[in-house]
Amino acid sequence: MIPTFADVQAAALRIAPHAIRTPLVESWQLNERTGGRVFLKLEILQRTGSFKFRGACNRLAMIAESERSKGVVAFSSGNHAQGVAAAAKLFGMPALIVMPSDAPRPKIEGTRAFGAEIVAYDRVREDREAIAARICAERGAVLVKPFDQAEIIAGQGTVGLEIAAAARHLGITLDEVLVPCSGGGLVSGTALGLKGSGVDARVHSVEPENFDGLKRSLEAGQRVQAPGGKLSIADALMAPIPGAVVFEVAKHLLAPGFAVSDAELERAVVFAAQKLKLLVEPGGAAGLAALLAGRIDARGRTVAVVLSGGNAEFGQIAEMIAKPV
Amino acid sequence: MIPTFADVQAAALRIAPHAIRTPLVESWQLNERTGGRVFLKLEILQRTGSFKFRGACNRLAMIAESERSKGVVAFSSGNHAQGVAAAAKLFGMPALIVMPSDAPRPKIEGTRAFGAEIVAYDRVREDREAIAARICAERGAVLVKPFDQAEIIAGQGTVGLEIAAAARHLGITLDEVLVPCSGGGLVSGTALGLKGSGVDARVHSVEPENFDGLKRSLEAGQRVQAPGGKLSIADALMAPIPGAVVFEVAKHLLAPGFAVSDAELERAVVFAAQKLKLLVEPGGAAGLAALLAGRIDARGRTVAVVLSGGNAEFGQIAEMIAKPV
Repeated sequence: MIPTFADVQAAALRIAPHAIRTPLVESWQLNERTGGRVFLKLEILQRTGSFKFRGACNRLAMIAESERSKGVVAFSSGNHAQGVAAAAKLFGMPALIVMPSDAPRPKIEGTRAFGAEIVAYDRVREDREAIAARICAERGAVLVKPFDQAEIIAGQGTVGLEIAAAARHLGITLDEVLVPCSGGGLVSGTALGLKGSGVDARVHSVEPENFDGLKRSLEAGQRVQAPGGKLSIADALMAPIPGAVVFEVAKHLLAPGFAVSDAELERAVVFAAQKLKLLVEPGGAAGLAALLAGRIDARGRTVAVVLSGGNAEFGQIAEMIAKPV
Repeated sequence: MIPTFADVQAAALRIAPHAIRTPLVESWQLNERTGGRVFLKLEILQRTGSFKFRGACNRLAMIAESERSKGVVAFSSGNHAQGVAAAAKLFGMPALIVMPSDAPRPKIEGTRAFGAEIVAYDRVREDREAIAARICAERGAVLVKPFDQAEIIAGQGTVGLEIAAAARHLGITLDEVLVPCSGGGLVSGTALGLKGSGVDARVHSVEPENFDGLKRSLEAGQRVQAPGGKLSIADALMAPIPGAVVFEVAKHLLAPGFAVSDAELERAVVFAAQKLKLLVEPGGAAGLAALLAGRIDARGRTVAVVLSGGNAEFGQIAEMIAKPV
């Protein structure tokens, strides 16, 4: 099932009592640096520290009261885990999360703090989808996929709806929007929310190099897999291929995608901490990395950048700052 | 001259083309922790990294074109310096700033980066007001005081105007507002902006212990000096006595003031970095410190906290986080 703009609007009503309406704020530093007007969508301030709460909350709100006691299951490297765990807690549902054993500690701790049960798996040797499917079958629980479900995409799409509303309020016309991308739920949803609201900006996915499955798929006109390989510092963005539902939305609505290197991601995280006073995790800074690396020419243009998550360890950012350049 | 609500409204029009309209955003973490609804006014995202730009911009905008070439002079430990320097640059005016030689490095560098000339002085042995007055007399330049001028208070008051507008937009009724305080320009201006907009919240100043001149003055019903002494980690909040103009506004509009210890300030800075993903300088976190230390009971209430500045060195915050508790 392909999500529509109406699904995004319905999601906005469903999540409104629970989600933070995060600000879209102009950055004087990025204006000076780029010669354009740059607005930041601060999803680092979203409940659970990333946009993932939106999709999870929308999905869980759609589970019938009678089914809620059976709980939900998700597999995730972290931000989706926290989103699902927090939403489950709000709806009084048990949550079980299948997480890689090497996931960042604050993401594991964050997930546990929301009261979820955690099953660890080996990222290289085990199949998280199989583990999750088995547990779902045993418990009759609902599987909440990280990106490739209409309800998830519609939930993330509320980011686009809010950017459009904020742009109207600010009296600006957006030319370009940069959105971090893993499986593509956020970027496709955001495009859906923006276009449906009448915003005619070019929406770009930004992925880590070697995990740029959506960029390659948009170029090929069909879903293709990125090479993967060496892990990216953007632990949240390592999906090698966009979801099938995602791609159905993306191929109609997205401008060409971008890929950024680890060095570019790191530079963006450091810039955010030192100049913008914002702690952004590497994956959450992918859009900013593309802007700082000059993937688009922002001069005289109006750009929105989604800072999609902030669940880095402070120490990780400190290490990046301390590194010799 | 005592500023009025009309002055704040006029200031808002003057600074609108230059200042960031900073967001007021709900904090899910502080909601959970306090049992109330807590909204953060993110002045760390203001041009120059603190609210000080507002007052400086308003003051400089009021200088006649014919006088602008003579420039402006200010004395400041840092944030006011950057505010004046940045505003002067925007208006094409020369700026000279008298700064203590021990001011935080990013504040000195920030000021120089805006093109200002800097004269260093010894905080203990020299009189910055005398130095600034002498230079003004020599150059015919305009002295831009840090807090005790109607135009400055009116400029800072735009923070209150914006909080009131955002609260209306969010459909909330504020019960309490916590505002960091040094000489009192921000807190008195904010109260002026709020009350004039019909917001009936209790507005509290928050000062470092031993520099709580406004708290003591409100209690005494007249301007009294705080003991001062040992320097606070809140380098931006070390005025021992509120301004005379400030106090005329404050005594009619403010609820009782609060004082916070260095340990409470530090805890707030660490909380902001680790939980809120925001880098706030110690002085800028005074309102948050008061909230976390339980100075007000936020349960079931709606609170706004002004995070007034973010110009700490990243390393300073890292040190606070690394400290054993």
